[in-house]
This record gives sequence, C-alpha cells and structure tokens, in this order.
Amino acid sequence: MDMLFAKTVVLAASAVGAGTAMIAGIGPGVGQGYAAGKAVESVARQPEAKGDIISTMVLGQAVAESTGIYSLVIALILLYANPFVGLLG
Amino acid sequence: MDMLFAKTVVLAASAVGAGTAMIAGIGPGVGQGYAAGKAVESVARQPEAKGDIISTMVLGQAVAESTGIYSLVIALILLYANPFVGLLG
Amino acid sequence: MDMLFAKTVVLAASAVGAGTAMIAGIGPGVGQGYAAGKAVESVARQPEAKGDIISTMVLGQAVAESTGIYSLVIALILLYANPFVGLLG
Amino acid sequence: MDMLFAKTVVLAASAVGAGTAMIAGIGPGVGQGYAAGKAVESVARQPEAKGDIISTMVLGQAVAESTGIYSLVIALILLYANPFVGLLG
Amino acid sequence: MDMLFAKTVVLAASAVGAGTAMIAGIGPGVGQGYAAGKAVESVARQPEAKGDIISTMVLGQAVAESTGIYSLVIALILLYANPFVGLLG
Amino acid sequence: MDMLFAKTVVLAASAVGAGTAMIAGIGPGVGQGYAAGKAVESVARQPEAKGDIISTMVLGQAVAESTGIYSLVIALILLYANPFVGLLG
Amino acid sequence: MDMLFAKTVVLAASAVGAGTAMIAGIGPGVGQGYAAGKAVESVARQPEAKGDIISTMVLGQAVAESTGIYSLVIALILLYANPFVGLLG
Amino acid sequence: MDMLFAKTVVLAASAVGAGTAMIAGIGPGVGQGYAAGKAVESVARQPEAKGDIISTMVLGQAVAESTGIYSLVIALILLYANPFVGLLG
Amino acid sequence: MDMLFAKTVVLAASAVGAGTAMIAGIGPGVGQGYAAGKAVESVARQPEAKGDIISTMVLGQAVAESTGIYSLVIALILLYANPFVGLLG
Amino acid sequence: MDMLFAKTVVLAASAVGAGTAMIAGIGPGVGQGYAAGKAVESVARQPEAKGDIISTMVLGQAVAESTGIYSLVIALILLYANPFVGLLG
Amino acid sequence: MDMLFAKTVVLAASAVGAGTAMIAGIGPGVGQGYAAGKAVESVARQPEAKGDIISTMVLGQAVAESTGIYSLVIALILLYANPFVGLLG
Amino acid sequence: MDMLFAKTVVLAASAVGAGTAMIAGIGPGVGQGYAAGKAVESVARQPEAKGDIISTMVLGQAVAESTGIYSLVIALILLYANPFVGLLG
Amino acid sequence: MDMLFAKTVVLAASAVGAGTAMIAGIGPGVGQGYAAGKAVESVARQPEAKGDIISTMVLGQAVAESTGIYSLVIALILLYANPFVGLLG
Amino acid sequence: MDMLFAKTVVLAASAVGAGTAMIAGIGPGVGQGYAAGKAVESVARQPEAKGDIISTMVLGQAVAESTGIYSLVIALILLYANPFVGLLG
Repeated sequence: MDMLFAKTVVLAASAVGAGTAMIAGIGPGVGQGYAAGKAVESVARQPEAKGDIISTMVLGQAVAESTGIYSLVIALILLYANPFVGLLG
Repeated sequence: MDMLFAKTVVLAASAVGAGTAMIAGIGPGVGQGYAAGKAVESVARQPEAKGDIISTMVLGQAVAESTGIYSLVIALILLYANPFVGLLG
Repeated sequence: MDMLFAKTVVLAASAVGAGTAMIAGIGPGVGQGYAAGKAVESVARQPEAKGDIISTMVLGQAVAESTGIYSLVIALILLYANPFVGLLG
Repeated sequence: MDMLFAKTVVLAASAVGAGTAMIAGIGPGVGQGYAAGKAVESVARQPEAKGDIISTMVLGQAVAESTGIYSLVIALILLYANPFVGLLG
Repeated sequence: MDMLFAKTVVLAASAVGAGTAMIAGIGPGVGQGYAAGKAVESVARQPEAKGDIISTMVLGQAVAESTGIYSLVIALILLYANPFVGLLG
Repeated sequence: MDMLFAKTVVLAASAVGAGTAMIAGIGPGVGQGYAAGKAVESVARQPEAKGDIISTMVLGQAVAESTGIYSLVIALILLYANPFVGLLG
Repeated sequence: MDMLFAKTVVLAASAVGAGTAMIAGIGPGVGQGYAAGKAVESVARQPEAKGDIISTMVLGQAVAESTGIYSLVIALILLYANPFVGLLG
Repeated sequence: MDMLFAKTVVLAASAVGAGTAMIAGIGPGVGQGYAAGKAVESVARQPEAKGDIISTMVLGQAVAESTGIYSLVIALILLYANPFVGLLG
Repeated sequence: MDMLFAKTVVLAASAVGAGTAMIAGIGPGVGQGYAAGKAVESVARQPEAKGDIISTMVLGQAVAESTGIYSLVIALILLYANPFVGLLG
Repeated sequence: MDMLFAKTVVLAASAVGAGTAMIAGIGPGVGQGYAAGKAVESVARQPEAKGDIISTMVLGQAVAESTGIYSLVIALILLYANPFVGLLG
Repeated sequence: MDMLFAKTVVLAASAVGAGTAMIAGIGPGVGQGYAAGKAVESVARQPEAKGDIISTMVLGQAVAESTGIYSLVIALILLYANPFVGLLG
Repeated sequence: MDMLFAKTVVLAASAVGAGTAMIAGIGPGVGQGYAAGKAVESVARQPEAKGDIISTMVLGQAVAESTGIYSLVIALILLYANPFVGLLG
Repeated sequence: MDMLFAKTVVLAASAVGAGTAMIAGIGPGVGQGYAAGKAVESVARQPEAKGDIISTMVLGQAVAESTGIYSLVIALILLYANPFVGLLG
Repeated sequence: MDMLFAKTVVLAASAVGAGTAMIAGIGPGVGQGYAAGKAVESVARQPEAKGDIISTMVLGQAVAESTGIYSLVIALILLYANPFVGLLG
C-alpha cells in the first residue's frame, strides 16, 4: 500500500478528532461563567472582600479550565506532534 | 498515490474539523452572558461599586473565554498553519 | 488527479464547515438575552442608574459576543480567504 | 473533470451549509424572548419607566441579535455572493 | 455533465437546506411564548397598564421574531429565488 | 438525464424537507402552552379581568404562532407550489 | 426512467417525512399539559371561577394546538393528497 | 420496475415513519403527568372540590392528548389504510 | 422480485419501527412518576384524604398512560397483525 | 431468495429493535426515583403515616412502571416469540 | 446461504442491541440518586426515624431499579440465551 | 464462509457494544453526586448524626450504583466471556 | 481470510469503543462537582466541622467515581489486555 | 494483507477515539465551575474562612477532575503508547 495514502487517512482522522475534542470546551465555558457571575454578585455585596473573591474565583476557574486544556493538548498533539505518522513508517 | 488527492482529503477534513471545533463557543457564550446579567443586576443595586463589579466581570469573563479561544486557535491552525500538509510531503 | 476535483471537495467541505461553525451562535444568543433581561429588570427598579446599567450590559454582552465573532471569522475565512485553495496548488 | 459537476457539488454543499447556519437562530430567539418577558413584567410594575425599559430592552435585544445576523450574513453570502464559484474557475 | 442532473442535485440540497433552516423557529416560539405568559400575568395584576404591557410585549416579540424571519427569508430564497440555478448556467 | 429521475429526487428531498421544517412546531407549542397556563392562573386570581387576560393571551400566542406558520408555509410551498419542478424544466 | 420507481422513491420519502413532521407534537403536548396543571391548581383554589378557568384553559390550549395540527395537516396531505405524484406525471 | 419491489420500499418506509411518529408521545406523557400531579396536590388540599378538580384535569388532559392521537392516527393510516399502495398502482 | 425478499425488508423495517415507537414511553414514565411523587407527598400531609388522592392519581396516570399504550398498540400491530405482509401479496 | 438470509436480516433487525425499545426505561427510572425521594422525605416528616406513604408510592410507581414493562414485553416478543419468522415462511 | 454468515450477522446485531439496551440505566441511576439524597437529608433531620427512612428508600429504589433490570435481562438473553440462533437453524 | 471473518465481525460489534453500554454510567454519576452533596450539607448541619448520614448515603449510593454495575457486567462479558464466539462454532 | 485484516477491524472497533466508553465521565464530573460545591458552602458555614465535611465529601465522591472508573477499566482492557485478539487466533 | 493498511485503519480509529474520549471533559468543567462559584460566594460571606474554603474547593475539584484525567490518559495512550500497533505485528 502507498505510504502517502496511509498518511492521508490518518491525518484526516486526526483533523476530525482534534475538532471533536475541542467540543469539551462547552463545559468549562459554562462552569467558569457561573463562577464569574457569582464573583460579580459577591463583589457587589462585599466590595471590601474583592481581593479574596477574585483570587478565589481565578483559582477555581483555573482548576475548571483543566479539561479544556486537556482537549487543547490532545488537539495540538494531533496537529503538531502527530505520533501516528511515525508509527506508520 | 497522487499528492493532490492526499492534500484534498486532509484539507477537507481540516475544514470540517475547524467547523466542529467552533461549536465549543456555545459554552462561553452562555457562561459569559450569565456573568454579564449578574453584573447588571449588581450595578443596579450598588452603583457605587460599579468599578469593582465591572473589573470582576471582565476578569471572570476573560478566563471563561479561554476554551473559546482554544477552539479558535485550533481552527486557525487548521486553516493557516495546517501542519498536515507538511507531514504529507 | 484533477485540480478542479480537488478544489471541489475542499470547497464543499468548507461550506459545510462554515455552516457548522455558526451553530456556536446559540450560546451568545441565550447569554446576551439573559443579560438584557436582567438589565431591563434593573432599569425598572433603579431608573436613575440607567446609564451604569446599560454600559455594564453592553460591556458584558460585548465580551459574550466573542465566541460568536470567532465563528463568524472562521466562516468568513472559509468563504473569502480560503487558505486551502492555495495549499492545493 | 467537468466544471458543471464541480459547481453542482459546491453549490449543493452551500445550500446545506446555509440551512445549518440558520439553526443558530434558536439562541437569540430564546434570549430575546426572555428579555421581552422581563420588560413586560417591569413595565407593569413601573409604567412610568416605560421609556427607559423599552429602550434598554431594544438595545439589549439588538446586541443579542448579533449571532443571528452573523448566520444570516453567512447564509446570504453562500446564496448570493458565493465565493466558491469564483475559486473553482 | 448533464445540466439537468446538476440542477437536480442543487435543488434537492436546497429543499433539505430550507427545511433545516426552519428548525430555528423553536427558539422564537419558546421565547415569545415566555413573553406572552409574562404579559398575561402582568395584565391580571395591573389591568390599568394593559396598553403599555401589550405594546411592550408586541415590540419585544417583534424583535425576538427576527431570527425566525431570517430563516423564512433564507428558505424562501432557496425556493423562489434560488441563485444557484443561475450560477450553474 | 431523465427528467423523471430529476423530478423524483427533487420531490423526495422536498418531502423530507417539509417534514423537517415542521419540527419547529415544538417551540410555539411549548411557549403557547406556558402562556395559556399563566392565563389560567391569572383568570383564577382576577376573574374580573378575564377579558383583558384572554385578549392579551391570544395576542401574545398569535405572535408566538408565527414561526410555526412560517414552517407550515414552507412545507405547503414544497408540497403544492413546488418551485423546483419549474426550475428543472 | 420507470414511473413506478419514481413513485416509489417519492412515496417512501413522503412516509418518512410524515413521520418526522409528527415529532412536533412533543411541544403542544408539554405546553397543554402545563396549562392543564395550572387550571387544576386554580380550580382547587377558586372553585367558584371554574367556568372562567376552564374556558380560558381550553382557549389557550386550542391555540397551542395549532402547530400540532399543522403537522397533522402536512402529514395527511403527504398521505392522502400527495401532490408529488401529480408532479411526476 | 417490479411492482413488488415498489410496494416493499414504500411499506418499509411506512413502518419506519409510523415508529418515528409515535415519538411525539413523549410530550403528552410529560404534560399529562404534570397535570395529574397538580390534581393530586389540589385534591389533598381541597378534598371538597374533588369533582371540579378531576373534571378539569381530565378535560385538560384530553386536549393535551391530541397530538398523541394525531400521531396514532398517522401511524394507523400508514399501517391499515396505507394510501401509498394505491398510488403506486 | 422475490416475495421472500419483499417480506424480509418490510418485516425488518417493522422490527426497527416497533422499537423506535416504544421510545415514547420515556414521557409517561417521567410524568406518572411526578404524579406519584406528588401523591406520596399529599398522603403524608393529609392521610385522611388518602382515598381521594389515590383515586385522583390513578385516574390522572391512566390518562397519561395513553401515549405509551398507543405506542404499544402500534408495536403489537407491527409484530402480530402486520398489515404490510397482506399488502405485498 | 434464500430463507436463511431472510431470517438473518429480520432477526438482526429484531435484535436492534429490542435494544432500542429498552431505552424507554430512562423515563420510569427517573420518575420512580422522584416518587421514592418524595416518599423518603414524607416518611421522615410523618413516620406514623409510613404505611399509607409506602402503599401510595408503590401503587404510583407500579403505574409508572407500565411503559417500561411495555418495552420489555415488545423486546421479549422480538426475542422469544418472534412472529416475523412465521410470516416469512 | 452460509449458516455461519447468518449467525455472524445476527450475533453482531445482538451485541449492538445489548449495548444499546443498557443505556436505559441512565434513568434509574439519576432517580435512585435523587432518592438517596432525599434520604440522607431526612436522616439528618430525623435520625430517630432512620429505620423507616432507609427501608422506604430501599423499597422505592428497588422499584425504580426495575427498568434497569429489564435492560440487563434483555442484554443477558441476547448474550447467553440468544434465541435467534435457534430460529436460524 | 470463513470462521475468522465471522469472529472478526462479531468481536468488533462486541467492542462497540461494550463501549455503548458504559454510557449508562452518566446516570449513577449524577445521582450519586447529588446524594453526596446532600450528605455533605447534612453533616455540616448535624455533625452528631454523621454516622447515620454516611451509612445512609453509602447505602443509597450502593443501590444507585446498580445500573452502572449492570453495564460493567455486560461489557466484561462481551470482553472476557464472549458467548458469541461459542455460538459461531 | 487474513488474520491481519481480522486484527485490524477488531482493534479499530476497540479504539472507537474505548473512546465511547469514556463519555460516561460526564456524569461523575457533574455529580462530584455538585458535591464539592455543597462542601465548600458547608465549610464556610461550619468551619469547625471541616473534617467531617471533607471526609463525607471525599467518601461520597469516591462512590460517585465508580462508573467513571468502570469506563476507564473497560477502556484500558480494550487497549492493553484486549481479549479479542486471543479469541481470533 | 498489507501491514501498512492495517496500521492506517487502526491509527485513524485511534485518532477518532481519542477525540471522542475528550468530550467527557464537559462534565468536570461544569461541575468544577459550580464548585468555584459556591466558593466565591462563601468567601464573600466568611472571608475569615478563606483558607478552609479554598482548600475544600481544590480538594473537591481535584476529585471531580478525575474522569477528565481518565479521558486524557486514554487519549494519550492512544496517541503515544498505542498498544494496537504491537498487537498487529
């Protein structure tokens, strides 16, 4: 079989897989927005605690970011460090 | 196999993958809108805290933006810096 | 292989990808509408804060708009600055 | 390959893509309706603020309209200014 | 290739695309119904504000109608002013 | 190509498209039912405002009906005034 | 091409389209049930307003019925007055 | 073409269409159950109004039943009075 | 064409259609469970009204059962009184 | 045509149909769980009414079970009393 | 036709059908968890009624389990007592 | 037919079926998490009832686990005790 | 038939099945997050009960983890201890 | 059969499977965001308990992270330690 065809199929599947993986971003988007809304509400009630509120929000959001980053990592690997091409050789 | 055919399949898959990745934008859209609604409500109750509220909202939204940006990045890479074409060569 | 066929497949996939990307507009639509509803409610309660409320709402909505704009950008690139055609040549 | 066939495939994909893009209209429809409901409620409570309420509602809805308009723009481009036909030539 | 076949494929895709575009009507339907319910509730509480309530409701619904109309426009164009047929010629 | 085959494909696609378009009826059905429920509740609390309540409800529902009617229109056009058959000739 | 084959394809598509159209019945079913529940609650609180409540409920439900009836109409046309068969001839 | 084959395809499509149409039953099932729950709650609070409550509930449910019955009608027509077979002849 | 093949296709489609139709059971299941939960709550508050509560619940559930039964009927017809086999002959 | 092939297709479709039908079990599962939760809450508040509560819960759940049982019946018929095999002969 | 091929198709369909049937487990999982949460809440409020609460919870959950068990039964029959193999012979 | 091909198809279908069955795990995951959240809330209010609360939570979760375990069992059977291979022989 | 082809199909199906199984992780993710949110809320109200709260939360989450772990186990078996390869031999 | 073709199919399926697995990230994203929002709210009310709140939040989120990590692990194995390639040899 042709190596070029093999690469074509694997890379096309990688492109679709990378796109599918990014859908996970719906979750962190909704969750972080909820946290942001709660932070805004809280700052308005206790402006003196603004520092604590924002640092808590950012910390919480940073953890909630994780699955979005995982998806980004998988997509970037599929794009730039595609290990499948080496496995074909 | 023809290099042109290989490029065709990989680029078509990239176009579909880029479109699919953008769907993740549903999440930040809903989340940031929730934060904006809470900010509006809070500003009306404590107009004197408007600065704090808006800076908190924008910060929170900026983090919630992240997964949408990740999707944009992946889509732009697929469009303008498509690494698959190089891998085919 | 025929260059015309290659362009045909890539451009057809681009059309479908552009349409799929626009679906992300569901998110900002719902989120911004929520913010608008909260703003309306708040203006009725504190009409004297109307300026603050509207500027907050518009700022919040502008950020929530972002993922919708990202999708629009990707779709427009696919339509008017389709980079895939150049990659085929 | 036949240019007619190429146009056929690209235009058929454009028709499907235009239809898919319009689905984004679900979001603004729900969001704007929520804003309208809140405006109605508020007008009944503070009829004297009707002007402020309606102007806020329309402004908020106008922004929420955006992603629906983006979809319309993409669909209209696909229909009336289809750039793909030129790219095929 | 046969012009008749080309028209057949494009028009069949247009019919499916028109049907898909109409699905966006779910959004305005739900949103406008929410606004109508709020208006009914408000009229019962402040019958003396009936004029204001109804004019607000109809204005709000009219804006919420927009994405439904966009879909109708796209579907009607696909049916009666199908630009693709001209592009094929 | 055979004209009969062309008509067959286009009309079959029209039948599927008409069925798909009707799905939009889910939205008005839910929204109008919500309005009806609110009207019933309101009539029970202020029976003396029954006329105002019902006229508001029917007006609001009539507007909410619109996207359902749009779908019906598109479906009926596809069935009885199918413009595609003329375009094929 | 065989007229029988043409009819077969068009009628099969009509059967699938009729079935798909009926799915819209989910919306009125949920909405009318909500109205019925509100009516039951209201009758229990103000039994003396039973006549008003029931007439309001039935009127509201009758309007909410509309999109279900539209679907039924489209399905019945597809079954008993299928206009496509005439268009084929 | 063989009449038997034509009947086979049309009837198979009718069977699938009948099954799809029945899915609409989800809506009335949820809606009627909501009404029943409200009736039970109301009877417990005002047992003396049991007659009114039950008659209201049954009337409301009967209307909510409608889209389920429409689906049943379409399915039964597809099964026992399939008009497509006659159209094929 | 072979009568056996015709029967095979139609009966296979009937089996799939019967399975699809049963999905409607999700609706009554959720709705009846809601009614049951409300009945349990009410019995605990007014044990002396247990008879009324249970008879109301069962009556309401019986009506809510209807769409589930319709699906069962369609499925049983497809299984045991399959009218399509006769139509093929 | 081969009778074995006919049986194969019909039985394979029956297996898929039986699996699909069981999905309806989601509805009763959620609904009965809601009823159970309400019963637990009620028993804790009125332990002296435990008998009434449990008998009401079980009765309500038994009715809510019905659509799950219908699905089971259809699946079992497809498995053990498959009427299609006889129809093929 | 080959008996081995017949068995292969039927058993493959059985494997997919068994997997599909298990999806029904989502319903009881959510419902039983709701009941467990309510039980935990109730035990904390009335620890002296722990016995009654737990017995009610387990009874309610046991009934809610039913549709999950039905799915398990169908899957196990498809795996271990596959009646289709006998029907093929 | 080749026994190896038969095994291949059946085992591939088993792998897909096992993966599909595991999706049921969404239900218990949500439900058990709800129970855990309620337990945490209750422990904070009545720390002296911690033993009762935890034992109730674990018991309730254990029952809610059941459909997840059923799926695991079906998947493990498909993997390690695949009865289909024996049926093929 | 070729053993290599058999392995290819079975292993490709295993890869897809493993990916599908991991989707179950949505459930525990949502549920455990709910529990964590309730724990945070409770700790803020009763900081002196922090130990009890955290141990309850972790215990509850650990059980809710189970279906996620089941999916992981099935996926790992499909990857590292794929029993299907042995069954093919 | 060609070893290269075998690798191609298995690796393409691995790419799609890895992308599908990442979708599970929706769950932890929503759940962790809920926890973060609750933490922000709590810190604003009891700033003196900030340490306890944050440590509880991070602990709870860390557990909720698990299913996202499982998906990442499966995806990374599919990418970098793909065991299927060895099984083919």
